[in-house]
Amino acid sequence: MGSNHQPAHILLYGAGSIGGVYLYQLLQAGCKVTAVCRSNYDTVKNHGFHLFSVRYGNIVYSPSAVVQDVLECVDQVFDFILVCTKSLPGNKPSLPEQLKPVLSGRPQTAIVLAQNGIGIEDEVAAMFPQNPILSGVVYCPAVQTGPGTIEYPEFLNLLELGTFPSTAPHRHAAERFADLMIQGGGGAQVHDDIQVARWSKLLMNAAWNPVGALTLTTDGDFLRNSGPYGDDLAWGVMVEIVMLAREMGVTGVTLQVAKEKFAIASKRAETGTGREMSMLQDVRQGRSLEVEAILGNAVRLARDKNISMPRLETLYALTKARCWALEKEASKVNR
Amino acid sequence: MGSNHQPAHILLYGAGSIGGVYLYQLLQAGCKVTAVCRSNYDTVKNHGFHLFSVRYGNIVYSPSAVVQDVLECVDQVFDFILVCTKSLPGNKPSLPEQLKPVLSGRPQTAIVLAQNGIGIEDEVAAMFPQNPILSGVVYCPAVQTGPGTIEYPEFLNLLELGTFPSTAPHRHAAERFADLMIQGGGGAQVHDDIQVARWSKLLMNAAWNPVGALTLTTDGDFLRNSGPYGDDLAWGVMVEIVMLAREMGVTGVTLQVAKEKFAIASKRAETGTGREMSMLQDVRQGRSLEVEAILGNAVRLARDKNISMPRLETLYALTKARCWALEKEASKVNR
Repeated sequence: MGSNHQPAHILLYGAGSIGGVYLYQLLQAGCKVTAVCRSNYDTVKNHGFHLFSVRYGNIVYSPSAVVQDVLECVDQVFDFILVCTKSLPGNKPSLPEQLKPVLSGRPQTAIVLAQNGIGIEDEVAAMFPQNPILSGVVYCPAVQTGPGTIEYPEFLNLLELGTFPSTAPHRHAAERFADLMIQGGGGAQVHDDIQVARWSKLLMNAAWNPVGALTLTTDGDFLRNSGPYGDDLAWGVMVEIVMLAREMGVTGVTLQVAKEKFAIASKRAETGTGREMSMLQDVRQGRSLEVEAILGNAVRLARDKNISMPRLETLYALTKARCWALEKEASKVNR
Repeated sequence: MGSNHQPAHILLYGAGSIGGVYLYQLLQAGCKVTAVCRSNYDTVKNHGFHLFSVRYGNIVYSPSAVVQDVLECVDQVFDFILVCTKSLPGNKPSLPEQLKPVLSGRPQTAIVLAQNGIGIEDEVAAMFPQNPILSGVVYCPAVQTGPGTIEYPEFLNLLELGTFPSTAPHRHAAERFADLMIQGGGGAQVHDDIQVARWSKLLMNAAWNPVGALTLTTDGDFLRNSGPYGDDLAWGVMVEIVMLAREMGVTGVTLQVAKEKFAIASKRAETGTGREMSMLQDVRQGRSLEVEAILGNAVRLARDKNISMPRLETLYALTKARCWALEKEASKVNR
């Protein structure tokens, strides 16, 4: 990793909504950022990003460099690779295979996984055992509404960071990255055990993302329109995850924490508001869903540990099939 | 009820896909049939029904009379009112309120409920305690693809009939109606306890209808693309219903029967085929879903009886919210 006195050189892998906001923060912090853009490459290359936000105002900015493929920057050594793509474990090529060209022979480059779900670090750690891996939990409700155009209508901005595994000796890398995010105007926290934060966010992701994808309602609208059984479903999912976390030895993911998470949606139901979860947006846009990272990894762990999860298993099976149907439709459209 | 030697006079309430097929059968049996048509009134009035079928060929036929509202035929006394509408208990006006104009002071008219779900007879029996009520379970995979146009691509045709309640003394009415259906070329059976048949069909309806509505897959595609958790979900729902049926004293709805029902979908998964359930068709066409008849009545009975139904309750909450979102979208379109 470069000295703390040199501007950090960062490869941004996945420059969608979250990646686009973090790009702005890292540029503000003085970093050199090379962005790997896929669907929005032409727009970003020619016109940069247009961010419409409460936190940073309405602004236009461009990455230090834009590439379509990591093969275009194999000659460069990065301090950090910030991964802001969807987490799609099991997809081919896998995330570590995609990153290999810029990581081979570069054990000093830290990999920051700013992604949803649980168990998402395993395949990266297996292929790059020497690289520092940082696990990140993102709270940044932004949406890319068109190529390079990001709507970010709330003030909330928090990146929770920690080493993977939690006992690894590269905490300084987490602190350096958190400092950059804060210098750039965002919020960041370094955790001793990031898995607690990851599982705490899973409480909400596992309940609300599949509900949104399957019903096309926000969290608040779902609770207002599904009767007491809707409350029982969402709360039941959270309880199943608390039980699994307990069995897995992830401390701090308690019924009390679940109550606080559940109360956020209850409040939205009462006030007639609600949030469109990312999976609901993905369904509307015909994109793949983070089914395995958010649901599949949890239900498989539960089976291994003999924990009963009838509600989460039901949501998993339904969402997996919905994702298949989406991909089938998309392949027809693109044929 | 009229003599067996007079042609029966029948009011067909709900002339969609199933109603349109049964209309043909009743006409073939020599009945006089007045059809209440709503969305397809103009087409049926002017051009009749066009049926494209394996069982009856491709034919055109018209009801003896077509009306838009039962108020147009209050001066007539019917032997049977055959109800082939969706079952939407709890909707306003209720089904008995809709039928009242042709049933007031006519205790001899038999009411045939050819509808899905369980507990669907209760509100009709409460308002018309003197009328013979026949409960019918329909196997007739037909779809109305446009106003008055019915596609019916399978040979299957079976109406299972019985009195409501099963101990009621009007079995002769069930036998007469079954005879008419058979004379018309269809299949019909009179059961001593129709609730056994109703609950047996619920095994499939409760599993496959919400799965189709939520995932937009057929039964076969769902099983092929949701992994082992998909099998566990569908089978788990069937087991929950067997447990409830046992508690409710509905005999003959056993794990063995559930296995046979489940095997139909497994076979379709193996052969790469599958059936689009009615709720999936309803979602595609933006229509209301039979949520309460198929799911709500079952989960409420289960709560009363202290039977745990985590899977069916999950499907109920999701489908109820999906139905709300569909109706909200429809109201926007029609505004």
